[in-house]
Amino acid sequence: MVGHGFMGAAHSQAWRVAPRFFDLPLRPELALLAGRDRGRTEDAARQWGWAETVTDWREAVARDDIDLVDIVTPGNSHAEIAIAALEAGKHVLCEKPLANTVEEARAMADAAGRAAARGAKAMVGFTYRRLPATSHARNLVASGAIGTVRQVRARYLQDWLVDADAPLTWRLQQEHAGSGALGDLAAHAIDLAQFITGQDLTEVSGTLDTLVPNRPLPAEATDGAGGGAGLGAAGGGSEVLAPVTVDDVALFTGRFADGVLGSFEASRMATGRKNALQLEVSGSLGAVRFDLEDLNFLEYYDAAALPDRQGFTRIMVTEPEHPYLSAWWPAGHSLGYEHGFVHQMKDLVDAIAAGTQPTPSFADGLQVQEVLGAVARSAGKASIWTPVH
Amino acid sequence: MVGHGFMGAAHSQAWRVAPRFFDLPLRPELALLAGRDRGRTEDAARQWGWAETVTDWREAVARDDIDLVDIVTPGNSHAEIAIAALEAGKHVLCEKPLANTVEEARAMADAAGRAAARGAKAMVGFTYRRLPATSHARNLVASGAIGTVRQVRARYLQDWLVDADAPLTWRLQQEHAGSGALGDLAAHAIDLAQFITGQDLTEVSGTLDTLVPNRPLPAEATDGAGGGAGLGAAGGGSEVLAPVTVDDVALFTGRFADGVLGSFEASRMATGRKNALQLEVSGSLGAVRFDLEDLNFLEYYDAAALPDRQGFTRIMVTEPEHPYLSAWWPAGHSLGYEHGFVHQMKDLVDAIAAGTQPTPSFADGLQVQEVLGAVARSAGKASIWTPVH
Amino acid sequence: MVGHGFMGAAHSQAWRVAPRFFDLPLRPELALLAGRDRGRTEDAARQWGWAETVTDWREAVARDDIDLVDIVTPGNSHAEIAIAALEAGKHVLCEKPLANTVEEARAMADAAGRAAARGAKAMVGFTYRRLPATSHARNLVASGAIGTVRQVRARYLQDWLVDADAPLTWRLQQEHAGSGALGDLAAHAIDLAQFITGQDLTEVSGTLDTLVPNRPLPAEATDGAGGGAGLGAAGGGSEVLAPVTVDDVALFTGRFADGVLGSFEASRMATGRKNALQLEVSGSLGAVRFDLEDLNFLEYYDAAALPDRQGFTRIMVTEPEHPYLSAWWPAGHSLGYEHGFVHQMKDLVDAIAAGTQPTPSFADGLQVQEVLGAVARSAGKASIWTPVH
Amino acid sequence: MVGHGFMGAAHSQAWRVAPRFFDLPLRPELALLAGRDRGRTEDAARQWGWAETVTDWREAVARDDIDLVDIVTPGNSHAEIAIAALEAGKHVLCEKPLANTVEEARAMADAAGRAAARGAKAMVGFTYRRLPATSHARNLVASGAIGTVRQVRARYLQDWLVDADAPLTWRLQQEHAGSGALGDLAAHAIDLAQFITGQDLTEVSGTLDTLVPNRPLPAEATDGAGGGAGLGAAGGGSEVLAPVTVDDVALFTGRFADGVLGSFEASRMATGRKNALQLEVSGSLGAVRFDLEDLNFLEYYDAAALPDRQGFTRIMVTEPEHPYLSAWWPAGHSLGYEHGFVHQMKDLVDAIAAGTQPTPSFADGLQVQEVLGAVARSAGKASIWTPVH
Repeated sequence: MVGHGFMGAAHSQAWRVAPRFFDLPLRPELALLAGRDRGRTEDAARQWGWAETVTDWREAVARDDIDLVDIVTPGNSHAEIAIAALEAGKHVLCEKPLANTVEEARAMADAAGRAAARGAKAMVGFTYRRLPATSHARNLVASGAIGTVRQVRARYLQDWLVDADAPLTWRLQQEHAGSGALGDLAAHAIDLAQFITGQDLTEVSGTLDTLVPNRPLPAEATDGAGGGAGLGAAGGGSEVLAPVTVDDVALFTGRFADGVLGSFEASRMATGRKNALQLEVSGSLGAVRFDLEDLNFLEYYDAAALPDRQGFTRIMVTEPEHPYLSAWWPAGHSLGYEHGFVHQMKDLVDAIAAGTQPTPSFADGLQVQEVLGAVARSAGKASIWTPVH
Repeated sequence: MVGHGFMGAAHSQAWRVAPRFFDLPLRPELALLAGRDRGRTEDAARQWGWAETVTDWREAVARDDIDLVDIVTPGNSHAEIAIAALEAGKHVLCEKPLANTVEEARAMADAAGRAAARGAKAMVGFTYRRLPATSHARNLVASGAIGTVRQVRARYLQDWLVDADAPLTWRLQQEHAGSGALGDLAAHAIDLAQFITGQDLTEVSGTLDTLVPNRPLPAEATDGAGGGAGLGAAGGGSEVLAPVTVDDVALFTGRFADGVLGSFEASRMATGRKNALQLEVSGSLGAVRFDLEDLNFLEYYDAAALPDRQGFTRIMVTEPEHPYLSAWWPAGHSLGYEHGFVHQMKDLVDAIAAGTQPTPSFADGLQVQEVLGAVARSAGKASIWTPVH
Repeated sequence: MVGHGFMGAAHSQAWRVAPRFFDLPLRPELALLAGRDRGRTEDAARQWGWAETVTDWREAVARDDIDLVDIVTPGNSHAEIAIAALEAGKHVLCEKPLANTVEEARAMADAAGRAAARGAKAMVGFTYRRLPATSHARNLVASGAIGTVRQVRARYLQDWLVDADAPLTWRLQQEHAGSGALGDLAAHAIDLAQFITGQDLTEVSGTLDTLVPNRPLPAEATDGAGGGAGLGAAGGGSEVLAPVTVDDVALFTGRFADGVLGSFEASRMATGRKNALQLEVSGSLGAVRFDLEDLNFLEYYDAAALPDRQGFTRIMVTEPEHPYLSAWWPAGHSLGYEHGFVHQMKDLVDAIAAGTQPTPSFADGLQVQEVLGAVARSAGKASIWTPVH
Repeated sequence: MVGHGFMGAAHSQAWRVAPRFFDLPLRPELALLAGRDRGRTEDAARQWGWAETVTDWREAVARDDIDLVDIVTPGNSHAEIAIAALEAGKHVLCEKPLANTVEEARAMADAAGRAAARGAKAMVGFTYRRLPATSHARNLVASGAIGTVRQVRARYLQDWLVDADAPLTWRLQQEHAGSGALGDLAAHAIDLAQFITGQDLTEVSGTLDTLVPNRPLPAEATDGAGGGAGLGAAGGGSEVLAPVTVDDVALFTGRFADGVLGSFEASRMATGRKNALQLEVSGSLGAVRFDLEDLNFLEYYDAAALPDRQGFTRIMVTEPEHPYLSAWWPAGHSLGYEHGFVHQMKDLVDAIAAGTQPTPSFADGLQVQEVLGAVARSAGKASIWTPVH
């Protein structure tokens, strides 16, 4: 694994837990952790159970005894690491967003295509697909339970930047993060919307904004590539203000392949919303809706039910009939955020063992990146409708 | 109408509104308002549109041009007025609880039985039966949608006595109110539970408590029979404490005719609960639940649904297919508290015109009163199980 | 009153009820009902209690004994009637949207300005402002309880057009309705957002769509100007398909005067959503959110609360401290849809008696119409950002 | 660890995860798994990472290299194992309920008392105390945030026995399970109520019922001591009916030490309720409520808030200020059922290292058992009020 911040903790936990609850065809070993700062990397390895450490990820890629490289660094380093790993014949799991630019993402998808011919698998880490409720939503939509999809409402609302004094960390700097709410949050909403509807966005009209344009620099500079299990907003700020160079709100309207109309919002300024990735899909025969703050539930509306019994049904998605659940606890026992990562590892290992393409692929990641790029281009041209491809 | 407090306002509004929205076979006229204090009665008549006033209800009962007597006074006066009215050949609508004691209630039910033979109809005012959501619940249960009923959970939670300085009004004095949370709140829960399940309670084990046993007397004594659209808790208290002689919490377990098990709570000390009359009925094939604080909704669980789609469905009970709704606004437009009263007047007028017995009858009111009496008796004997009849 | 459909019923009920619950300085009399079809107008007058009828609204405007003209006809007739009434010195209440075009709305606002100089008052009927919860939201925002407003999320979701066989009524024809979800639903969302934030929209980027472009003509042609308490979707369709000439979904992003960013959606295709006018306002110190399907509640987030106690507080807006509530029932007793109309009549009568300008004024209605117009213009130009004025 | 069913999986996972997220003073090693069936025990050890296995728990107790015995067998074996382990100087963690009878529980508490003098710690596994939301509730109550506690409403509702054909497993047999909903579910509600209020129940009036008195024997007899991660309800039933010898519903009213009044229900027949451990505590200044089906949330009512802003605040208990949370993910990221077990292990290890008494102690477990016993005694005597001690 390359990197060891918040995502590193989530991935490590998932690699350790997956084989306990699922009957995996291959046994993951937490062999090697790469991080730039030796001390912090060794601490992380100890905490999360990695056998060895290196300070240069190139060493990991070069070693013969490494089969898979898991990339949890900030987006600006994804392309270089992933492409090198794929060219070295490693399987790759890369955190989302696939990259900070469409160009990088395309190079990665190309590399993944070449590597696939040699048997190396590449997957991008949109773990919210792998919550039982979102998987179940996709299954319901795919089964025709809501008929023809017509509208999607997707938003990802957080509030950790509401405080104008929250410091300017790497996530607020374009050179490290690529974009703000757009790449960090909208990327999830886009992937989830495309996953659940089974359709790709083709055209967008978007707006980006930075509602708090200047923020204090952190009291102590932080290292972009590692450290901390949090979002990087903790800790006090200095008295020096500097410009925020990414968006804190992204809004766009999108068209999917089959004419479906979607509205999207990503915000880090949505006061009181802690982690509200919300999706609602309206179809000709029903609807589904999901909220990450209540991740064990899916709401389903059946327009074919008796007229006096229609309403949104709040399904607690913890039954053995629901995706991934038979491996876990009895019905009614909640799963948490981290279980999506466990399912990701299971699905990836299954695909590697079976020799099939894991999803979301780098091509899927590129598609998301292209949507993000189109939103940014549209936003730069007074929100004019802009094709994704 | 006799009396003109909070309930007088609700009834007056309902008498005026019912013929506008429903096609009634008879046209109600707000002929005469009776109240002990001439000035306040005249004010109320003006406000609510009553043509005349009297200060002695006996005048109303004696008049030939009065067809129906609507009784909205405190419970201790119900029996005398209702029996006199029935004996004078009037139809009677009497607010709940039917009376303050089982003896009075029985005398009233007897009088209603005799009057029925002469064509006079008597009805007790459990209006919560007549909300679309509760009516729909009963219809679902009666249709077999939840299978065999097994358990009932009923509670009516309010919090207007949480403040230990809330003054000691007539509602907290046994001689006026008969009982406290029991007669005021549990009576509703009992009626609703019996109505929705279609079964009567036969046996109870109960507990009554007065968690705040002394309260300040009101700064100014209030008249038990009239005044104010509120619950009588408003206004400051004096510095003189006096004992509260009714319960502020009533808890009981009950058995229904077919072995159904019920748990009941009525509380005026449920901090934060404003008007939470909640009912849940568990059956072998499903369940329904209702909360008066969200009165336009009924939740329905269908245990026969596909296993991966089960959950409580939140039905917005505002469709034309739902009870009473075709007379009102388009689907999705909420009704309020007072609409239950409008439906009560419609149903009563329909029954009078058709010559059928309106429900809930005085016998139904007596049944509730007998349950209340059995709870009080059980509470007086260390909660031992006590038959209702 | 001119017109007597769904809105006519709501207004009639409100005119009758307002003086019962509120102490009005003037006494409304339901003098005259105007409708094109004599029989149906007479039926409506009987049902809703209007003393007389005419078949030409001009007669009403010409009569000396009429002080106020209440216009509840479809939007294409508003301008002519309202201007004539104002020029005749009548006060005017006009249903929303003020008109079907900006030009008509401007003419109306101009007429209202001229009439104001002569003492005639004009008001447009955005009644959702007058629900206790929305009024309370405005008060909270105005008091600084949520700090500086930064974002607004507003949507009005209904689902009565999800069925592709729902017939093509006047509401789906541009010549009668002007627009579809935009004028009918987005108008409410815009007014409410401007009311609660106290800021006007200045610029928009919008998209309109008609997801079901052809629908069956009604089995029997209906009269655009009257009839039925419903939304006009009831009744079967014929087998002849015709084009829907209005939008069924409207999406736009908007900028308010102070830089606040808003996202708006209006949809008649939001499966399972019955009447979900939802508004969320995010500020630097808190947030409020509202949903018309739960209209007795307002959710409030206080970012200044202790960190371990923050969350959305679900306020049941039925306390005497809340707007309009002291006139109604005790705390905890729900109001419904129609109460907003009662409050509208109260506020209008108060303003007339006091000689002050009632709000929302025709100028406010024009502002909404200009936003609608700008959305339509933007939608016609690939969603490019378009100034409202 | 002795036993390896559903609870064995939960404990194993917790032992493995706790040291990764928390900085523990001692390092747990999963040394030895004891189970009666060699093959199944070895399978479980492999799956959950235990180093060795034995088929007789006495071997574990006899070994010098074992410091702690974790007991996850059915309740009828707890006493023998726990007492032997304590007498051998081991620390003991014992699943709830502490035992199947008061006598056994008392013997265990006595043994724990004697062992404490020798430095061995004993703890009973009421893990629901250790969810962040329930811990936070206790902290709020202890801090005075809700004033004087007056009422408790506690219920634990499940529905896995609604199907009358669900087979008669060990959990439905008195000789294995002791009691039904009472010991399995009410025990949790009692412990949680006592934990959050800080008060013990002193007196109860209870009712037990078996609404489905006969059920099919399992198609294949199952071993009471092990097997399966589920609740034992899975799998088909044979055609032979046999009596259910435990309750499926338990209802009781209770009195706490300071006069607080509590109502309790435990049901396995609550159709649609999957795992609804619900607790509401009403105090003189506020209230808290919790539902295990939404375990990341606590609702808090502050009666001292401004009158127009009162309501239940839905706190997402995932902030660093909340109990246990600083070890986990950023704010807004949900935890699940199993995290309570992780926190249990952390707290136990901390107490062992510090030489302090972990809670809940065996004495706390005995108190719960005494309440259960008093409920059963009261139920056997027509629900008469019965002292706990």
